[in-house]
Amino acid sequence: MAQKNIAVLLAGSGVYDGSEIHEAVFTLLALDEAGASYQCVAPDKPQFHVVNHLTGEPMSESRNVLVESARIARGKVKALKDMKAIDFDALIIPGGFGAAKNLNEWAIKGPDGAIDPDVKAFILDFMRLNKPIGAMCMGPTVVAKALAGSDYHPQLTVGSTAAPSPYDIAAVSAGMELLGSKAVMRTVQQIEVDVMHKIVTAPCYMMEASISDIRLNTKQLVDALLKL
Amino acid sequence: MAQKNIAVLLAGSGVYDGSEIHEAVFTLLALDEAGASYQCVAPDKPQFHVVNHLTGEPMSESRNVLVESARIARGKVKALKDMKAIDFDALIIPGGFGAAKNLNEWAIKGPDGAIDPDVKAFILDFMRLNKPIGAMCMGPTVVAKALAGSDYHPQLTVGSTAAPSPYDIAAVSAGMELLGSKAVMRTVQQIEVDVMHKIVTAPCYMMEASISDIRLNTKQLVDALLKL
Repeated sequence: MAQKNIAVLLAGSGVYDGSEIHEAVFTLLALDEAGASYQCVAPDKPQFHVVNHLTGEPMSESRNVLVESARIARGKVKALKDMKAIDFDALIIPGGFGAAKNLNEWAIKGPDGAIDPDVKAFILDFMRLNKPIGAMCMGPTVVAKALAGSDYHPQLTVGSTAAPSPYDIAAVSAGMELLGSKAVMRTVQQIEVDVMHKIVTAPCYMMEASISDIRLNTKQLVDALLKL
Repeated sequence: MAQKNIAVLLAGSGVYDGSEIHEAVFTLLALDEAGASYQCVAPDKPQFHVVNHLTGEPMSESRNVLVESARIARGKVKALKDMKAIDFDALIIPGGFGAAKNLNEWAIKGPDGAIDPDVKAFILDFMRLNKPIGAMCMGPTVVAKALAGSDYHPQLTVGSTAAPSPYDIAAVSAGMELLGSKAVMRTVQQIEVDVMHKIVTAPCYMMEASISDIRLNTKQLVDALLKL
């Protein structure tokens, strides 16, 4: 069996303005452990903003999504616009606010926000090619936004209102339903596998969780994705 | 048995100007898996420089070591100058060029470079209190530099000249010997445990390695450290 090659879509480096670092690193680890290869990809454009991760306050500087994503990828990241879904076996979108600020605008405008056109096209190509997509934390909002208005109505999760969370799981879930997806409730010990659409989603840091919880939830997602 | 609390000394966020992200994240994971708690700490000062991780070239901007370290720690990092060794059970220093640019100056001046005085004092306090220290990748150069001129002459490793490496293992090893440490050769599958000095070192990304190798090498180090 040929080695699978997975695209990992990054959105910067750091939970508040980029990709959540733990989720992204554990994604790469789980892929390597499963014998898959991976290519990190990211949009080559300015971040929505830069957040001081010590204080949580925005900083008056500008950073590039691709350049910052290279920190997680140790330099090995390529510009999304040069990538084609046909060259990969699956796509994974780690979470963090970067997914909801740089890939779509959910963190600012909810389901009404725009989605990056290259991100939308990339996701739709994976769907049309019947190739699996994984998304964690706020990543499912990017999938829901990309598929809004299409014939795809997948089941996605961003967490459960029955488990402790620092975020408004009900509101994000309702927003995804507005866009035509079905939102289901899952804890950080669970993932949602939509077999028909070949989409796997995991709450990760959308819920209160330890770093070991994130490692396990990410591994669950990656292993389920590689089986599809 | 009371839960152990480990200080993790970060030096920014990104292999070329800060802490190596994979090594730092796997350190936190292994500590959590082993039932230990941790506190990330970092110097509150400007980085030596900022490197574009896509091109490898320096950028004309300034970033703060503590603020960037907060990206890895999801905001939960404290200024080194406010921390006391007596409040921790052990210290771990992940690698990356930040260790050799922001904690000491090895990447620029080799063993002749200065060491951050707060870093030196912190390390010496752990030694005097007979508490274990772990260091990976370029981290051992920080330990060697802190202990130079002291009565401590630990055995440390930054890798092996017999295994493939992108770096000059022989030169770094010779530099540590000049400072009074004994440098031993270890591959990325191995760690060095100096039981007498309670110091554990691991080559990690000083050698050619996969992300799974780094996960295992880091876990080896953390588990050995917690046994000391």
